[in-house]
Amino acid sequence: MASVKPSVPKGTRDFSPAEMAKRNYIFDTIKSVFRKYGYQQIETPAMENLSTLMGKYGDEGDKLIFKILNSGDYLKLNQTVFSFSSRNGENHKIGFWDALSYSVKLEQNQTINSDDPIVEKFVEYYGYFKEHGGPEFSKLLTSDISEKALRYDLTVPFARYVVMHQNDITFPFKRFQVQPVWRADRPQRGRYREFYQCDADVVGSDSLLNEAEFVLIYDEALSKLGLKDFTIKLNNRKILSGIAEVIDKNDNIVDLTVAIDKIDKIGLDGVIRELLEKGFTEADIEKIKPVILLQGSNEAKLRSLRDALSKSAIGLMGCDEVETVLNYIGNCPLKTAHLELDITLARGLNYYTGAIFEVKTNEVNMGSIGGGGRYDDLTGMFGLKGLTGVGISFGADRIYDVMEELKLFPETIDIGTKVLFFNLGAEESKTAYHLLQQLRQKGLASEIYHEPTKFDKQFKYAEKKNIPFAIIIGSKEIETKTCVIKGLRSGEQRSVPFEALCEFSFI
Amino acid sequence: MASVKPSVPKGTRDFSPAEMAKRNYIFDTIKSVFRKYGYQQIETPAMENLSTLMGKYGDEGDKLIFKILNSGDYLKLNQTVFSFSSRNGENHKIGFWDALSYSVKLEQNQTINSDDPIVEKFVEYYGYFKEHGGPEFSKLLTSDISEKALRYDLTVPFARYVVMHQNDITFPFKRFQVQPVWRADRPQRGRYREFYQCDADVVGSDSLLNEAEFVLIYDEALSKLGLKDFTIKLNNRKILSGIAEVIDKNDNIVDLTVAIDKIDKIGLDGVIRELLEKGFTEADIEKIKPVILLQGSNEAKLRSLRDALSKSAIGLMGCDEVETVLNYIGNCPLKTAHLELDITLARGLNYYTGAIFEVKTNEVNMGSIGGGGRYDDLTGMFGLKGLTGVGISFGADRIYDVMEELKLFPETIDIGTKVLFFNLGAEESKTAYHLLQQLRQKGLASEIYHEPTKFDKQFKYAEKKNIPFAIIIGSKEIETKTCVIKGLRSGEQRSVPFEALCEFSFI
Repeated sequence: MASVKPSVPKGTRDFSPAEMAKRNYIFDTIKSVFRKYGYQQIETPAMENLSTLMGKYGDEGDKLIFKILNSGDYLKLNQTVFSFSSRNGENHKIGFWDALSYSVKLEQNQTINSDDPIVEKFVEYYGYFKEHGGPEFSKLLTSDISEKALRYDLTVPFARYVVMHQNDITFPFKRFQVQPVWRADRPQRGRYREFYQCDADVVGSDSLLNEAEFVLIYDEALSKLGLKDFTIKLNNRKILSGIAEVIDKNDNIVDLTVAIDKIDKIGLDGVIRELLEKGFTEADIEKIKPVILLQGSNEAKLRSLRDALSKSAIGLMGCDEVETVLNYIGNCPLKTAHLELDITLARGLNYYTGAIFEVKTNEVNMGSIGGGGRYDDLTGMFGLKGLTGVGISFGADRIYDVMEELKLFPETIDIGTKVLFFNLGAEESKTAYHLLQQLRQKGLASEIYHEPTKFDKQFKYAEKKNIPFAIIIGSKEIETKTCVIKGLRSGEQRSVPFEALCEFSFI
Repeated sequence: MASVKPSVPKGTRDFSPAEMAKRNYIFDTIKSVFRKYGYQQIETPAMENLSTLMGKYGDEGDKLIFKILNSGDYLKLNQTVFSFSSRNGENHKIGFWDALSYSVKLEQNQTINSDDPIVEKFVEYYGYFKEHGGPEFSKLLTSDISEKALRYDLTVPFARYVVMHQNDITFPFKRFQVQPVWRADRPQRGRYREFYQCDADVVGSDSLLNEAEFVLIYDEALSKLGLKDFTIKLNNRKILSGIAEVIDKNDNIVDLTVAIDKIDKIGLDGVIRELLEKGFTEADIEKIKPVILLQGSNEAKLRSLRDALSKSAIGLMGCDEVETVLNYIGNCPLKTAHLELDITLARGLNYYTGAIFEVKTNEVNMGSIGGGGRYDDLTGMFGLKGLTGVGISFGADRIYDVMEELKLFPETIDIGTKVLFFNLGAEESKTAYHLLQQLRQKGLASEIYHEPTKFDKQFKYAEKKNIPFAIIIGSKEIETKTCVIKGLRSGEQRSVPFEALCEFSFI
């Protein structure tokens, strides 16, 4: 068999034992916090029906969904195969081989006599789809040859899960999910085509306690991972709606927040200039000046906002919501996080309806390491109306990079095997094996070198695998029923009787 | 948006919190044993290059691989698109739309003048591929519109991993991997299109210690899971080769083992009758009678085998290998497993070259719950020759079913949250929240009901979520700084001062 240098698809990664140890450390920490707050784990299949995913992420998202080719003879000769759509958007299907033969006749200017309305449509639109042969043809063919796709995020499969299992679920349903997702994005540094998402959501409760708990979860998980300076930014979609309402500029909220975000760099005059360029009027700016100049404590910001939004019911509701969350938190001091009301936070503006979260580390220059928010109609897309949801996500890959840069992983993280018994021959290894099993029964990860060979090689194996202790049992040791324990980092060496080995502290 | 009742693709499954708790219990147990024996975890991407997977599992396997449609405009107009192969197996490619237009001309009996040898080929083979339009066309198209596929098992991706990372790996490399695989098999009871594999392999060591350790790993992991009566069957490909050599019937080994396997049911005469029907001669049968009549202890079986195979060097080598493994095990008594030399075990005959393993429970009627063996040339398919491998796999789904049937899961397995604080109103919940955070800081999974509502509803939530303790804090309790702890299973109720809550033992 000709062999090609093997590789993985671009944008995907292998994880080595050392990387797995670090990734498990991150995931296990986050999961343990989720569990402590009453969240329960679920898993959904990697493949979803294409119809479950399409149309949920916008046109751009649809393109980035990995589709799975139907198995077997997916182009069934003269069965439903080739779709074409007429300009009014109707879809029609015709056998692929029929399509080919009709095309031939049409090219020959032959008349096609058929009572089949589909064939008539095909003839009618032949020129059109021939003209749109390229991309159009791909798109049309896809729905015929693919009915499954890889999940694009964990939220849509979760919504599907909730609707499918609604009768078995105890609401409010607090679930977490840690699984890979796939996106046909252009790969680049820090952006992969396969990556894990790490989500917790509550569905079926509009209580702001949930929002407060997510702040505590971020604080606790990231503190446990060793981060020492990070900010949880909090905003509320209703505040943004209020601002828009006050100046009647619903569509320009993003322009507004982008400009305000620059105040530290370009000053008030700069912000005003930018806003005027973007079509805001002097009167608008006057009305929202307190919003632009927002600063100080969260409480001070809230006071200014209430003044500025006094005429907007929804804006004031947003202020109330933020205040409620802040009050909950005030009652339970945060370990590490700074909690900051940031009205420039507009992430996911299209679907969030209440709270918006984002987490940033202040120790490393890096995008957000977490985010989330409340969406009032999570399951409506699958026909179950009126269920509100709120959720957060941890950006595991970025957290990994931050922890690497700050050297936050425990030094011992890639110690798997604690003890390596050296192999000095058939007889010696029998004795060694006996002791090895005793250590394992005590729960100690331990190995024996697989064959008798030079010490050098066995030391090298221990060193490369980061094994901290070697135990050496030769004929002399068998006679005296002792073994030599060698600390491979310290270089220290001790003789320990066989019967005392299990009590030895390998630290 | 029109909404359809949502579903998952056939052969795939959602896992609920209760199922996840049980699955995690199985995987965590097996992983902890792998780690204790010095195995290190890796992960590989769900998607592999199609070329990495194709041709590794036979023609049937190739068909069962889920292919992923190239993203974007995969049918590029007049770029490399349509493949066709000539009868001698050469592959050619031609632009899809060109293919259509040449077809038109050919149907019109027009002459096609082209110097392009591909076009000449197309003309030459037009009739052929038109005739083979259906399945053939699908197959040909696939290589053009798909270049990635979902992994079909963990062994081929592992071999690819070893070759790609050979310079970073410490050999012998003991790795484990627990990830889903996908197969486009017809789904049926107990057979899924997405399922987890749970594999451990050593690559780069021909020491039989590895085989012995796999027996110990099976024994320890399954004992830990609570199985009380199971058999690890052991065979060796070299013994089977020896039998074939002795009677010169290399191709009939499977017929032979299938017949011998029936001896308990149909007796010696029955087995002989079947062997004669299958083309074995009286002389053959005379030579291998000791093999057919094999019984007694493993040692007794080995003695008979040595007699029967005394003229086959490879057969005797197989006996030596089995004996070495048995000797290692003899040195470390098994906890639960029966270890049985079973020469009818021929699983994966095509690729195993040494040891063959299979595990069966004797408590439930169920296929094998584990299996594996040695394959001498794991990485040869990717160009790295001479690396031997040996590995085992746990059948997690079947182990799950066995444990369900035998009720082996711990009763408390789906207890997540230990304590639910009842919510009696804004003021009360503030106090409750303060205490709740103290319990969480102690590591206790606990929650507060998300809103003040009727006790009934809060009790029901606790009951459905299997939460064993409720804590009730009303205005009276705030006054006296005590809380009421209610055991929801026992019905017992106790008053505990706030400051003593953290010391309370929630068991």
